[in-house]
Amino acid sequence: MSTYATFYQGKRVLVTGGLGFIGSSLSMALVQAGAQVTVLDSLVEHHGGNWQNIKTIRDQVEVNTHDMRQFADVCEAVKNKDYIFHLAGQVSHGDSMREPLSDLQINCVSSMNLVEACRQFNPSAITVYTSTRQVYGVPISLPVREDHPVLPVDVNGINKLAAEYYHLLYHRVYDVRSTVLRLTNTYGPRLQIKNDRQGFISVFVRKCLNNEPIKIFGDGTQLRDFNYIDDVVDALLLSLATPSCLGKVFNLGSKQHQSVLDLVKILQKISAVQYEIVPFPQDKKLIDIGDYYGDFSAFVERTGWQPKVDLADGLKQTLEYFKQYRSDYLS
Amino acid sequence: MSTYATFYQGKRVLVTGGLGFIGSSLSMALVQAGAQVTVLDSLVEHHGGNWQNIKTIRDQVEVNTHDMRQFADVCEAVKNKDYIFHLAGQVSHGDSMREPLSDLQINCVSSMNLVEACRQFNPSAITVYTSTRQVYGVPISLPVREDHPVLPVDVNGINKLAAEYYHLLYHRVYDVRSTVLRLTNTYGPRLQIKNDRQGFISVFVRKCLNNEPIKIFGDGTQLRDFNYIDDVVDALLLSLATPSCLGKVFNLGSKQHQSVLDLVKILQKISAVQYEIVPFPQDKKLIDIGDYYGDFSAFVERTGWQPKVDLADGLKQTLEYFKQYRSDYLS
Repeated sequence: MSTYATFYQGKRVLVTGGLGFIGSSLSMALVQAGAQVTVLDSLVEHHGGNWQNIKTIRDQVEVNTHDMRQFADVCEAVKNKDYIFHLAGQVSHGDSMREPLSDLQINCVSSMNLVEACRQFNPSAITVYTSTRQVYGVPISLPVREDHPVLPVDVNGINKLAAEYYHLLYHRVYDVRSTVLRLTNTYGPRLQIKNDRQGFISVFVRKCLNNEPIKIFGDGTQLRDFNYIDDVVDALLLSLATPSCLGKVFNLGSKQHQSVLDLVKILQKISAVQYEIVPFPQDKKLIDIGDYYGDFSAFVERTGWQPKVDLADGLKQTLEYFKQYRSDYLS
Repeated sequence: MSTYATFYQGKRVLVTGGLGFIGSSLSMALVQAGAQVTVLDSLVEHHGGNWQNIKTIRDQVEVNTHDMRQFADVCEAVKNKDYIFHLAGQVSHGDSMREPLSDLQINCVSSMNLVEACRQFNPSAITVYTSTRQVYGVPISLPVREDHPVLPVDVNGINKLAAEYYHLLYHRVYDVRSTVLRLTNTYGPRLQIKNDRQGFISVFVRKCLNNEPIKIFGDGTQLRDFNYIDDVVDALLLSLATPSCLGKVFNLGSKQHQSVLDLVKILQKISAVQYEIVPFPQDKKLIDIGDYYGDFSAFVERTGWQPKVDLADGLKQTLEYFKQYRSDYLS
């Protein structure tokens, strides 16, 4: 632990989406750092929430299973909290197109409920909101900086962008402080791998575990940046502990950018999984963003954050975790 | 009537927010142009919907008072329509801050319901969505072009921007065609002048009618552009009838830009109203955008539209209308 070594000691911290992949990993780190953690997660069906994710800290955290779409429940949840990590959300781009009204409720309404609940009942709480690189849409230049135009290409990107704006607006107008992080492809232990809703890495990991061939859409040359979960948790903890980040938007990202095919070849080395190139399905092609990698130097400058785990090591640890705890995720 | 002289003849047209200021004015023009008009307006309390607005065409239009926040009702409303003008919305910047969750439901949910209803039940309908110059936030350069960065400074601007994105996304991905117009200060007969929810001109007009002094916040030097209702109706009719506008966003605007004080002085000449300069209330200052006027040359280029009514004439006609029909608006 770096600059936030004692920052969270004894602090009351709310983690929304805390039974999910990133939320549970963050909650474990917060418990480790001496925080009093409340996990808020309504376990929306087919989403990332999974009780197994917090089994090692189950008796050290409070769990609230209310639904953030209900304003009154959010008001109760924010009371008496020092810090809030707002990770609850619908993350699947495809599902946001198939169920746009649900995505709107989960991403827009829940986030508006959160900032408004804070304004009314806990204006001194500090929040970190986890957004997505999807808000940029198709990059017009690489690497993508935070001032790149935003033109989301799917419902999820639109709603996450609106949620960003709610946080920034409440910060500016009401001093309900928050920082927005735009995450890129995050992977690691505790990913939701049971269905296809949490991005292509989770699908590929399941294929590895099941010894099924990976299907690569198109030619696999699309560039991406990848962050291992521990690095993202580190970024989250640093961002909230760094006052100069408040009221601003930052990209995360990785030092190297690699193609989807690069990633699959690494998986192949670790697990001997096979792959095949298949045509890009039309519904996915329409919302694909092409090559993407982000410029995260602004965040480094303010926080000193550096992603430490490279893709090969991270994928190895990920597969090892899921082999060991397979029944918690693929039962 | 110019290029759309016969375009609307016999066409089935839905006007959402059709009992409001712009919606009713548009509906009258559509009836005149031979369209079969359905007005959809749930008459949300304190908003612009007013039965008196359509009294001259009451027996020539169908009126549907369902609420666009209900998806099933929107699905019914869009069926068998050729064209849709989507004007229903919450327009008050101040109210969007006081009642953000309501603004979200009215502006985001209703718009998502509309595009999704069209996708499912009437994908060939063409829609014009009326957005607002508020999506830009505080201008960083003037005149503001459509590619100016968007950074809304209030809840209304955020939600209207999300609604724009829904329309553009559905246009691109599903060929559910629409055009977005970003309106600036629109004024004229049938403005909602009973309360302060429809912009400063409506407040000023009420003051004139009541012989009460106008309060100008700050020094009144903020620049704005103003469009008379007939010019906006003309722009709406032209935009839908111009295929090259589809899938794009256009500003409206006026040839001259004038200060708030300029406008008040014109009102003073017409009606002898008094004014006083008062400090900018803090809640309004926080969401004020400073000087604004838009570049509308892109829209002119495609449609040939030209705003014809200058501010002095427009205000004169507006006051005359409200003097004649005062009891319909201030009872």
